[in-house]
Amino acid sequence: MSLVLRTFGESHGAMVGGVLEGVPAGLKLDLDFIQTEVNRRRSVNAFTTPRQEEDKIEIVSGVFEGVSTGAPIGLLVHNKNVRSKDYDALKETFRPGHADFTTFAKYGIRDHRGGGRSSARESVIKVGAGAIAKLLLKEVGIEVASGVFGVGGVQAEELDFEHALSSPIFSLDKNAQQAQQEAILHAKRAGDSLGGVVLVRAHGRTLLGLGEFAHRLDARIAYAMMGLNGVKGVFIGEPQAASMQGSAYNDALGLHGFKSNSCGGVLGGFGNGSDLVVWVHFKPTSSIALPQESITTQAEPTQITLKGRHDPCIAIRGSVVCASLLALILGDFVLSNTHARLNQIKACYGY
Amino acid sequence: MSLVLRTFGESHGAMVGGVLEGVPAGLKLDLDFIQTEVNRRRSVNAFTTPRQEEDKIEIVSGVFEGVSTGAPIGLLVHNKNVRSKDYDALKETFRPGHADFTTFAKYGIRDHRGGGRSSARESVIKVGAGAIAKLLLKEVGIEVASGVFGVGGVQAEELDFEHALSSPIFSLDKNAQQAQQEAILHAKRAGDSLGGVVLVRAHGRTLLGLGEFAHRLDARIAYAMMGLNGVKGVFIGEPQAASMQGSAYNDALGLHGFKSNSCGGVLGGFGNGSDLVVWVHFKPTSSIALPQESITTQAEPTQITLKGRHDPCIAIRGSVVCASLLALILGDFVLSNTHARLNQIKACYGY
Amino acid sequence: MSLVLRTFGESHGAMVGGVLEGVPAGLKLDLDFIQTEVNRRRSVNAFTTPRQEEDKIEIVSGVFEGVSTGAPIGLLVHNKNVRSKDYDALKETFRPGHADFTTFAKYGIRDHRGGGRSSARESVIKVGAGAIAKLLLKEVGIEVASGVFGVGGVQAEELDFEHALSSPIFSLDKNAQQAQQEAILHAKRAGDSLGGVVLVRAHGRTLLGLGEFAHRLDARIAYAMMGLNGVKGVFIGEPQAASMQGSAYNDALGLHGFKSNSCGGVLGGFGNGSDLVVWVHFKPTSSIALPQESITTQAEPTQITLKGRHDPCIAIRGSVVCASLLALILGDFVLSNTHARLNQIKACYGY
Amino acid sequence: MSLVLRTFGESHGAMVGGVLEGVPAGLKLDLDFIQTEVNRRRSVNAFTTPRQEEDKIEIVSGVFEGVSTGAPIGLLVHNKNVRSKDYDALKETFRPGHADFTTFAKYGIRDHRGGGRSSARESVIKVGAGAIAKLLLKEVGIEVASGVFGVGGVQAEELDFEHALSSPIFSLDKNAQQAQQEAILHAKRAGDSLGGVVLVRAHGRTLLGLGEFAHRLDARIAYAMMGLNGVKGVFIGEPQAASMQGSAYNDALGLHGFKSNSCGGVLGGFGNGSDLVVWVHFKPTSSIALPQESITTQAEPTQITLKGRHDPCIAIRGSVVCASLLALILGDFVLSNTHARLNQIKACYGY
Repeated sequence: MSLVLRTFGESHGAMVGGVLEGVPAGLKLDLDFIQTEVNRRRSVNAFTTPRQEEDKIEIVSGVFEGVSTGAPIGLLVHNKNVRSKDYDALKETFRPGHADFTTFAKYGIRDHRGGGRSSARESVIKVGAGAIAKLLLKEVGIEVASGVFGVGGVQAEELDFEHALSSPIFSLDKNAQQAQQEAILHAKRAGDSLGGVVLVRAHGRTLLGLGEFAHRLDARIAYAMMGLNGVKGVFIGEPQAASMQGSAYNDALGLHGFKSNSCGGVLGGFGNGSDLVVWVHFKPTSSIALPQESITTQAEPTQITLKGRHDPCIAIRGSVVCASLLALILGDFVLSNTHARLNQIKACYGY
Repeated sequence: MSLVLRTFGESHGAMVGGVLEGVPAGLKLDLDFIQTEVNRRRSVNAFTTPRQEEDKIEIVSGVFEGVSTGAPIGLLVHNKNVRSKDYDALKETFRPGHADFTTFAKYGIRDHRGGGRSSARESVIKVGAGAIAKLLLKEVGIEVASGVFGVGGVQAEELDFEHALSSPIFSLDKNAQQAQQEAILHAKRAGDSLGGVVLVRAHGRTLLGLGEFAHRLDARIAYAMMGLNGVKGVFIGEPQAASMQGSAYNDALGLHGFKSNSCGGVLGGFGNGSDLVVWVHFKPTSSIALPQESITTQAEPTQITLKGRHDPCIAIRGSVVCASLLALILGDFVLSNTHARLNQIKACYGY
Repeated sequence: MSLVLRTFGESHGAMVGGVLEGVPAGLKLDLDFIQTEVNRRRSVNAFTTPRQEEDKIEIVSGVFEGVSTGAPIGLLVHNKNVRSKDYDALKETFRPGHADFTTFAKYGIRDHRGGGRSSARESVIKVGAGAIAKLLLKEVGIEVASGVFGVGGVQAEELDFEHALSSPIFSLDKNAQQAQQEAILHAKRAGDSLGGVVLVRAHGRTLLGLGEFAHRLDARIAYAMMGLNGVKGVFIGEPQAASMQGSAYNDALGLHGFKSNSCGGVLGGFGNGSDLVVWVHFKPTSSIALPQESITTQAEPTQITLKGRHDPCIAIRGSVVCASLLALILGDFVLSNTHARLNQIKACYGY
Repeated sequence: MSLVLRTFGESHGAMVGGVLEGVPAGLKLDLDFIQTEVNRRRSVNAFTTPRQEEDKIEIVSGVFEGVSTGAPIGLLVHNKNVRSKDYDALKETFRPGHADFTTFAKYGIRDHRGGGRSSARESVIKVGAGAIAKLLLKEVGIEVASGVFGVGGVQAEELDFEHALSSPIFSLDKNAQQAQQEAILHAKRAGDSLGGVVLVRAHGRTLLGLGEFAHRLDARIAYAMMGLNGVKGVFIGEPQAASMQGSAYNDALGLHGFKSNSCGGVLGGFGNGSDLVVWVHFKPTSSIALPQESITTQAEPTQITLKGRHDPCIAIRGSVVCASLLALILGDFVLSNTHARLNQIKACYGY
């Protein structure tokens, strides 16, 4: 069985939750680590949303005396700081940039409070599950990291994942951080928002060979990232690939692995042992405090100015989620890669 | 059941093939159209591979008297112009940029002839199946088109999908075409290759609402495109999203749909009724005729200069495949969108 | 998307729960009905378990103002009447007939309290989800019913699904009921248990055509039933089929459907419009109060005499679950059957 | 990735085929063995169909120099002995017992020649793929066998799987065989058909622990068997389970495994190390040469007397397919069971 997460829950419901299947038995589920990961996504400060959720993650099944049992793991986070009346004015109006219009067009009904199911609130469960995946990956020497590369066009020059961990905006570059923060605050003051670019990286020799002919590693990564709220672009490896020549792009192969990493760690859909390098492009937060043209559910033109509590740049907290998503994918491939070759299987059963 | 394609076959095997499940019964399978689509991918000319395959597509099941029956559709294309000895020299060597090293590392064995399963040859089946999907889409007013936007940095300014149909390099811009062709020939003469950018577009009011909460339209698109050989990046809508402000990016909603299309036709994972706009970035063809550093299967350093028969820019023929992949995804969502709302279901059964 | 339920939770954990995806939007989620269904499974009386759980079902997502939104539906039932110390003695011992030995052998760890994940407690979520499926089925004229046919060899002669609803043991036959109840009490007093046979039936013209070539209706039914705790056999239609001649077995086809129903409503993997008739065979409850031979986790022989709180015949409450499982399967096929034919699809989109 | 087979093809089309994904690399694909398995299903004699197909199985991908590569394996069998005009008379009529009416009701179209997709002809691919699975199972010490237990009520008393291999009707009992054969010939002469019961068995210590919490071994077995043409019932272990007491049914656990095998090798959805014992009930062949009542596609009553070429008892050749199906399921679980526990995974990667 593969590592699969299914989630449920809306922004202003009682809770969000999920079921994580496929975690092997015997993994110590370090609750402190898992909560810390969840807290990183929460990170309330001047650069993020004022909505202050406690975000206490509960693991309600699949664990016994602190260790995974192989049974499905239920994850829950109760919503506490819900202010649904902030959204009363939106019941009859579609917010530009949001899923409001599309979900209503499709389903004929929508939970207008905080975006309902389409809210990024659901990603807290992805981070909780991703933390479990990270614990699994650690056991086989894979580390996943992420950080903010660009904010509204202000880009990092250095890629320092260590710095990102302590940066209030998870910036990869301590030098660019100040300018990035100012860009955010400037947009926020103007009632506007900014897009951003996140960089996600995985490292470890176990990456070599992850993937399947019919379920490529790169395809799975693109699926997960593009399925995250606000993501509009995913790039693996050298972003200028399409403008390059093969002689400059190709990574030469040496005795100790590849000598460069244009391919971002994936060749032919399999990990090649180099670092996985994934660029994730987020659009600017859709919720802005400036007036926008829209229509009502009765198909009348209207103007809308959002209040609510929003992140000026979703790439910041999104960067935490991206690493979680990569961890979940890699965890899944770590499982399936144990039976790629007959001799692995025979050894496993003692033949 | 959803529209699912499974493929098999290697570059130098007897054939490539696939099974397409989920095609509704009653669809006229226009073989001329399907073959024409396959031929477009084949398109042998100065800008593509010299390997001349007949590429006759056979539909061996799921059709009765020219009409789909609802049963799985088997698709086959026999390989004819196989020159495996071109690859004899490669048996012991890993080609940079290819899946050679990764598949060997994973599986301990590989079919070295023409890239084996990792060859782009398999995509002929994707195009055949995609043609069937296009026939389905036509019935509900959706059209899919694609073309080449950029070649090695030489970009289109105009986006003319009509022109792309007749262009030898599927270029979107009749003015840029000449420069693009020259870039290709220049690279080819130098034994080198070029990356490229493909633009894929879908149009039709049925696009509104396609997608699922748990299976987002954008995620599925990213999965399919990134899973294609040579693709390293996928963007939906405005490529500069990450550098923009929300006030500039957001598409205002008017009485007749959205007034702009930064989002590329997807909001919250669902089609918003605007054109779907997908950018696909291809790396330069990995096979080049220049010497490259590599290692042998016995882990000894070597230098490799490829002969074989290769496309100097895979984005060209890849552009045909990208449209096929989009058609398959949209076809699947067209199916599942018939039961999004209870009232649709009741109407279907006469309640 | 199809109707899919994923569950989590152990017998003695904080709760059991699940995620139900694919419920169409616009379905009124009648909580009273759903709770009533859950209560039917609970049904504490002299013939069932003394464990008295409140079994209050919570629907925590996917519903807005009482109506389904198309988003995943989260279901929870908190465990309240947990007496884990009943199981302390079992920590080191494997109970015959249970999953104790197999899960330990596989995973190297197990939650010994109340059977952990392998407990039938999880089925409360299946009943909750099944109730939602029943609400969907009602809208298209399908009714699902079930009852107890045999208990330890004491069989019904009449098949009265109405009577089963009010019978304390869900017996299909008011005449056999007394003897069945006595058999149960006799086994209970002896510290023993009994097997049983459940009959599940679905009725409605919408059944005609449900199924897929690659996902047969009968196969799905068998999967679901056999996956329920204690089930060891599944039969569709005439149980003596294997001993019969074709001339006696075949159902003649008349102008108003089939004239008999040996096939139990399924031909070639599709519903044929006749009633679906499914027989489900349950083994005797594994937990008995008589001494049994077993071994310890340290591989030493031991004798075990179970206390705990157990159903003397799991077929009784199992009969409720079986109907829920059938409802979930039929609900799924009701969705996918809306796009079996091109003309259905075109009508749905107004073409 | 798991071991998955997708098939295509109709009885009277050019060929039937399939794609088998998930076979680990490095497995020697013994073509003689695979063809021998296919031949066993074919087995033309007085007790089976007169349709004489060559049934040469072709493996067209996923193999290199006789060894599996990890790539999807394409399987083909060309149809040669097609006599479609036998079926001309059936174009407008629905055969009782067949999928004719249901597929037409669902899809509005059907390939009437030989049952189209619903023909048991497709099972030749299941046997070919099952043979590959058997080769995999042999490597980890699992053997699968099957035979005919009962024919029209004439039952075996001895269960001799060795004898079944050489018996013309795959009978499990050399003493009952004569009576079973006579029953078949008697039915055949009368233009009638018979049902039958097949017994499938798997043996090997690797069976212990096969299964998943969310994908139970028994459920998967039931799905596969019930999905085979003509199967109406599946039992695992002691067929009288539902009439028994727990004290008699439960298998005591000793130091060397279970002391009896009522449970048929499955406890709680996992293999318990005892032999897997599966009973499969086949209805009588639907095609009989006696007159039957039916209706035409224009909904007029008619009488139908079938000619064609049919097996008088499909359980005979079906017994070969049942073993193949069990092999495919076990092969899949053998793969996923390699990553049930963290320590297995770590060992696999050298941690």
